[in-house]
Amino acid sequence: MSARRAMPSAAVIVVGTELVLGLRPDTNGPEIARFLAAAGYAPRTLFALPDDHTHLAAYLRTAIADHDLVVVTGGLGPTHDDVTREASADALGLALRPDSHLERALQAIAEGHREPRAAAQVLRQALVIEGARVLAPSIGTAPGQVVATARGSLVLLPGPPAEMRPMLAEAVEPFTSAEAPPPRVLGCVGIRESDAQLRAERALESHTGVALTVLGRPSLVDVVLIADGTDGSGLAAAADDVASALAPHCYATDGATLAEVVIRDATARGISIGSAESCTGGLVAAALTDVAGSSAVFRGSIVAYADDIKRSALSVSPGTLATHGAVSETSVREMALGAREALGVDVALGITGIAGPAGGTAEKPVGLVWFAIADHTTVTAGPVTFRGDRALVRTRATVHALDLLRRAVTPRS
Amino acid sequence: MSARRAMPSAAVIVVGTELVLGLRPDTNGPEIARFLAAAGYAPRTLFALPDDHTHLAAYLRTAIADHDLVVVTGGLGPTHDDVTREASADALGLALRPDSHLERALQAIAEGHREPRAAAQVLRQALVIEGARVLAPSIGTAPGQVVATARGSLVLLPGPPAEMRPMLAEAVEPFTSAEAPPPRVLGCVGIRESDAQLRAERALESHTGVALTVLGRPSLVDVVLIADGTDGSGLAAAADDVASALAPHCYATDGATLAEVVIRDATARGISIGSAESCTGGLVAAALTDVAGSSAVFRGSIVAYADDIKRSALSVSPGTLATHGAVSETSVREMALGAREALGVDVALGITGIAGPAGGTAEKPVGLVWFAIADHTTVTAGPVTFRGDRALVRTRATVHALDLLRRAVTPRS
Repeated sequence: MSARRAMPSAAVIVVGTELVLGLRPDTNGPEIARFLAAAGYAPRTLFALPDDHTHLAAYLRTAIADHDLVVVTGGLGPTHDDVTREASADALGLALRPDSHLERALQAIAEGHREPRAAAQVLRQALVIEGARVLAPSIGTAPGQVVATARGSLVLLPGPPAEMRPMLAEAVEPFTSAEAPPPRVLGCVGIRESDAQLRAERALESHTGVALTVLGRPSLVDVVLIADGTDGSGLAAAADDVASALAPHCYATDGATLAEVVIRDATARGISIGSAESCTGGLVAAALTDVAGSSAVFRGSIVAYADDIKRSALSVSPGTLATHGAVSETSVREMALGAREALGVDVALGITGIAGPAGGTAEKPVGLVWFAIADHTTVTAGPVTFRGDRALVRTRATVHALDLLRRAVTPRS
Repeated sequence: MSARRAMPSAAVIVVGTELVLGLRPDTNGPEIARFLAAAGYAPRTLFALPDDHTHLAAYLRTAIADHDLVVVTGGLGPTHDDVTREASADALGLALRPDSHLERALQAIAEGHREPRAAAQVLRQALVIEGARVLAPSIGTAPGQVVATARGSLVLLPGPPAEMRPMLAEAVEPFTSAEAPPPRVLGCVGIRESDAQLRAERALESHTGVALTVLGRPSLVDVVLIADGTDGSGLAAAADDVASALAPHCYATDGATLAEVVIRDATARGISIGSAESCTGGLVAAALTDVAGSSAVFRGSIVAYADDIKRSALSVSPGTLATHGAVSETSVREMALGAREALGVDVALGITGIAGPAGGTAEKPVGLVWFAIADHTTVTAGPVTFRGDRALVRTRATVHALDLLRRAVTPRS
């Protein structure tokens, strides 16, 4: 057996005062961390730092000293508060030099600016740390850079995700990914976090070298299996056993979203789908059409927010609305049937509920949502009362609706 | 005039291996940073660190040395991977001692566990760093702690947001909050980041003590004004001038979202609205119904993803679809008119386009989206070609649609 090398450690630094002030969520940091973990690195530290030369340079020194790979994103643009280039050169004790190739490309852009100050700023992006490999921008104007450090390398990437992504893949070489497989995420729905944890723990009793993390999101639970150390040989078998223990709540073992599973299974079986939404206001349709290729099976949705739209577009009877109200079993059954008819689909979903904050009563509290699924032969309906604020009720109702569609279109094994 | 004290610097540390691996987005870090900024502190560094005693202790030492206030969240629970208590005591060189009051409260919970291991774990939560002030849990079982450091204090808070929030407010004393107002965010749409920056800079020439940050998001630009130092007296006047310079692109100066402004203005003027969506698949309706109280003016949306739904539900003529195709000026005009009729609204929006990745042609590329607004007298239509992947095209189209609705319902000043 060959001696194993330890996984190289990695730090991710996102630069931007707005991130440190919490004014904007950081999506780059988690995305880069996932990429690095999949490429065989061990992400150890995520930093968000302001556009401040001195502070950034100090933490760059710390990160470079403590990690084999340091990936920095943001602060490479043309404006005065883009200080990542200068702070990085400072932290490494290296000089910045204009790259003649970059300079020529930027010159054309600079000439388009009328103001001399703006033109000069554009040219700052041609400055490269001595000895760095340049990552040419495919979109945007900011190049990336890769510089050697005492322990490994420092990678500088622009902040806009669409510019960052291709450069990240170009800059980071996968490290022995066979020995350190990426974490396996088993997506689950309709099960409590504690219940999922217990089932997974029992299934893992006959496996070694696999660490378990269970992460709850609203109405979804991710069961994450991580190879302990660098030996990941048992991870796949463990994932299979845990998935079996979690069935039928486990909707994906390959990272697919719940909406992707619905579209994939409906497409495989040639089942067309549609919806009639009230309280979710289009969220179910938006989730399904987020999936590329969804037009093969998803035909449309009637978002009937006002009661008279439920009548006119979904043929819910005035008597039903008057007697039972819009949030009722009778209404939701008629909505699903009306959507099946109006959209000409095999399977239609109906949703109506009280998202809040207003509109609740003792009998029909905020959070009460009725669901129905209509297919060629039957209509099944049921209520769920969700806890949480308006946004959470809508999110949970959308997840539940997608799960009902999944169960309607997925073949029973 | 009194001498001004500098704003105390703050670091936020979120603890959890899943956060460092990017498996779950961190919401605590930005929320705590916003709280601290509003309380008069200057957040300088955000760290995400794994559940690893040695690594966490090392970065706690760095954070405590570099910042006046350090707030840590997560890793205070009962399980073996909750190491924040121990790592913090280590970083400060102080001992952990059981708090008898906490111990009694936890004893009752421990007795409910059948397994001795689980019971022992529960009691770990009674361990307190010597000299620390204990923050009693109002929900959950994990207490928080406040410990003095050489420069100020270290605050340990549990990870679940509902447990963290009340303790944060209890632990952190506002620092001269009247002198350091929170940042002002001016939401803008339909303007380039660089253009917004230039206009804001010119408007700020006659103001001092205000720092400018311009943040681009897909199709939206946030112009952020931050009081420099502790004197924020000129911030409001500066915000007014910058907002005027950005009109009519500035849709809100009070933090409202674009959808909130549409609903607010439509409600104030009694204008009912609806939509017919193809490529956005319900995102416009979902954004509008995300606003509490939207049912006062938003009546519904026809998500016509398949062409024959455009015919049956929106009365788009078969001739139009055959001659011009679904993505065309004629189609989108008929969609908006059809939605106005079917939904019985004052103002209806139509959207049809090619979100990709498939379906583009030389004449109608991926990213081409047609928009129309129909009111009682006219229909206006126009195309936009958005760059980016499927998700980005859909997001940008949704923002543009909301802006068209805003311009249709907002009174001209």
